[in-house]
Amino acid sequence: MKLQVTQENLNKALNNVARVASGRNALPILSNVLIKTVNNRVCVSATNLNIAITHYIGSKVTQKGSITVPARLTQDFISSLPQGVINLEVDETKLHITAEKYNSTINGAPAEDYPIMPAIKDGQKWKIPAKDLKKALNQTIIAASSDEARPILTGIYLYTNKGNLYAAATDSYRLAERKITKLDKKINLVIPASSIQDLLRIVPDTTDDITIISDDQQILFSVSDSELVTRLIEGVYPQYQQLIPKEFKSQATIDRSDFINITKVSSLFARESAGSVTIELDQASNKVSIQSVASQLGENTAEAEAEITGAGKITLNSRYILDALGSIEEDRINISFNGKLEPCVIRPAGISGHTHVVMPLKS
Amino acid sequence: MKLQVTQENLNKALNNVARVASGRNALPILSNVLIKTVNNRVCVSATNLNIAITHYIGSKVTQKGSITVPARLTQDFISSLPQGVINLEVDETKLHITAEKYNSTINGAPAEDYPIMPAIKDGQKWKIPAKDLKKALNQTIIAASSDEARPILTGIYLYTNKGNLYAAATDSYRLAERKITKLDKKINLVIPASSIQDLLRIVPDTTDDITIISDDQQILFSVSDSELVTRLIEGVYPQYQQLIPKEFKSQATIDRSDFINITKVSSLFARESAGSVTIELDQASNKVSIQSVASQLGENTAEAEAEITGAGKITLNSRYILDALGSIEEDRINISFNGKLEPCVIRPAGISGHTHVVMPLKS
Repeated sequence: MKLQVTQENLNKALNNVARVASGRNALPILSNVLIKTVNNRVCVSATNLNIAITHYIGSKVTQKGSITVPARLTQDFISSLPQGVINLEVDETKLHITAEKYNSTINGAPAEDYPIMPAIKDGQKWKIPAKDLKKALNQTIIAASSDEARPILTGIYLYTNKGNLYAAATDSYRLAERKITKLDKKINLVIPASSIQDLLRIVPDTTDDITIISDDQQILFSVSDSELVTRLIEGVYPQYQQLIPKEFKSQATIDRSDFINITKVSSLFARESAGSVTIELDQASNKVSIQSVASQLGENTAEAEAEITGAGKITLNSRYILDALGSIEEDRINISFNGKLEPCVIRPAGISGHTHVVMPLKS
Repeated sequence: MKLQVTQENLNKALNNVARVASGRNALPILSNVLIKTVNNRVCVSATNLNIAITHYIGSKVTQKGSITVPARLTQDFISSLPQGVINLEVDETKLHITAEKYNSTINGAPAEDYPIMPAIKDGQKWKIPAKDLKKALNQTIIAASSDEARPILTGIYLYTNKGNLYAAATDSYRLAERKITKLDKKINLVIPASSIQDLLRIVPDTTDDITIISDDQQILFSVSDSELVTRLIEGVYPQYQQLIPKEFKSQATIDRSDFINITKVSSLFARESAGSVTIELDQASNKVSIQSVASQLGENTAEAEAEITGAGKITLNSRYILDALGSIEEDRINISFNGKLEPCVIRPAGISGHTHVVMPLKS
C-alpha cells in the first residue's frame, strides 16, 4: 500500500471509527483500526464484533494494499500533525507515515488477521431525514437502561405504528417516546443504546437523509462518507403504551427554564434522599412549588408561576425531571398526573409526538 | 444574624473560600464555611488548619451574628440562585435563606465550634505587583514535587538575593526559577504548592499590588477583598543554584511553537518508555530533531529548523520539556547542555531571569 491523503480527512476518519476499537477487548487486534484501499479511496474501519464503523476518504493511491495499526496511537499521532499532505506506505507489518517535518513508523498487524466486519446481505432499505432521526434518538436515549440484567431495556425501540416511525426507551423508572416521521414500512427493532451513541457522534448536522438497511439481526446506517452496522438486541420490547395515562386530574403549564431552575435548586437538598423532590400544583395561587427535605442538611422550597388546571402533589426523582426537561426544546411544558401513585407525564405544551413518563417515588 | 447581600457577591466569596473546606477532614466542622458579620460587612471564611481563606463582602446588616454551614451545599445552592438580593437569617443553628422564589433552610453548626484561624501577630510587611507574583508562581509551580517523602520539595521557595525576589521549585528531576521583582528585604520562605494553587485562584487579574506579611511560620497574602494565610514548610531549601550550568557546549535557538509540536508528536511514541525522547542538535543542517522509540508501537522522528551554536544529543522526559515550554511566554527558546549526563537548560532566548533545568535520562 502506498498513498497520499490529507491530514484533515484522515483525522476525521480516525475520529469517527477509533472509539469502537477498544484495548479492553480479549482479542488484541480489536484495538487496531483497519486501513485499506478500495479503488481510489481509503477505507478506515474498526469493529468490536457488535458494531462496525467504516469511513471512506479520497486519496491518491499509488499502490493498493491494507494494514491494521493501533487505534489510539494512530489517532493521537495523526491529530497532532499539521494540516496538509500525509504519505502512507506499508512495508510488511509496518506503516510508514511521512509529513513535512515528521517521519514515523507504526508497528501494525496484517489486515488478514482482522475479523470480518458484520454485514447485511438482504434487508429492507429505507431513508429518513437525518435531522429528525438524530433529534428523536437524542431525546429518547436518556431513558435507556444501563442495567445488563434486562438487555432489552438497554436498547432504543424503533418501530412503526399506523404509518409513523417512533423511537422509545425506558429503564422501567421513566420512559421517553418520540414520533420521528411518516414511514410506510413495517419496522420493529431494538438497537443497543451504545451503538446509538456512536451513531449520534458520526452523523454530521449538515446531512440531509440517512439510508438504513435492516434485517432481523442487524441494522446499517449510511450517511455521507460513513457507515455504521450494529447487531440488534433480540427479544420483544415491552408494550409500554398502556402505561401512558390519557386523562389527568392534576395538570400545570409552566415555563421550561423556570421548571429547570426550581428543580435544580431543590435537587441540591435531595442528595441524601436519592434525588427525591415533591412537586405541588396549587390552583389558588397558580403556582408550582418543589419541596425537598434533607433531614441532615436542611430543606428547600422553590416555586414558579404556572397555569394550573387541576391541583395535586407527587414525589419524583429530580434527575429524571431534569433529563426530561433537558431533552425538550419548546419553551412551555405540561406536567400532568393522577394522584401520588400513578405515572407522571411531562410534555412540551400544545405539541404532540414527544412524551416523557416518570414513575412516582413513595413520599 | 440577619442581613442582605447580593447573590453575585456571596457567590464570589463562597467560590473563593469553599475549596479549602474539605469533607475528607477528620474534624467534621472543617467541611463548613464560617459566615459572620464584621461591622457592616460579611466575612466568609474556611480553613483546613494549614491554610485559611477569608473573603469580605458588602452587606446590609440588620442584626449581627455568625454561623457555620456545609460548604459544598451552600456553594452549590447560592450559585444556582438568580442574581439579585438574598436574605440570610440565623435561627440558632439554622440558616434561613430567602430569595425571590426560593425559600431554604440549611442546617449548620455554631461559629464557636469552628477552629480559630491561623493568624500572624508580628511579621515583616511587604508589597509587590500582583501580576508579577502570579506569573512567577505559575511558571515555577509546575516543577514542585508531589512526593510527601521530602516535604521541603513540595513547596515553592520564595527568597531574596542581591536586592531581587525569586521564586523556585524543584522535584529533583527538573527545576524552575523565576526572578520576580526588585525587593529590598530579607525573605527566605518555603510555601506549600497546594496553598499557592489556592492563592493563584483567588488573586484577580485586575489587582495592582498584593500585600504580604510573613513571619517564620506563616505567610499572609492580602488582595482586594480576600486574605489567605498559610503555614510555611519548615526546613532549609536545597542550594540549587550550583546545579545550573553557566557555559554550554551544545546550544540551539528554536521557535517555541515548533519545539512544542515536535515534542508532543514524539511523546506519543514515548508512552512505553516513560516519556523518554532524544533531542539532537545538528549543526550541518541547522535542525533540532527529536526521536522516540517505542519498541512495540514503532518509532518517530520529528524535526524543526533552529540556529545551532554547538551540536549534541541528550535524552529527556518529554513531559518535563512540555511543562517548561508551556510556562514560557516568549516566542524563541534556547536549549543548552553539556553532554548526555549534565543538566539541560531551557530558557526564553535573549531574556534573563527565567530558567528551567531538566535532568537527563539514561539513553
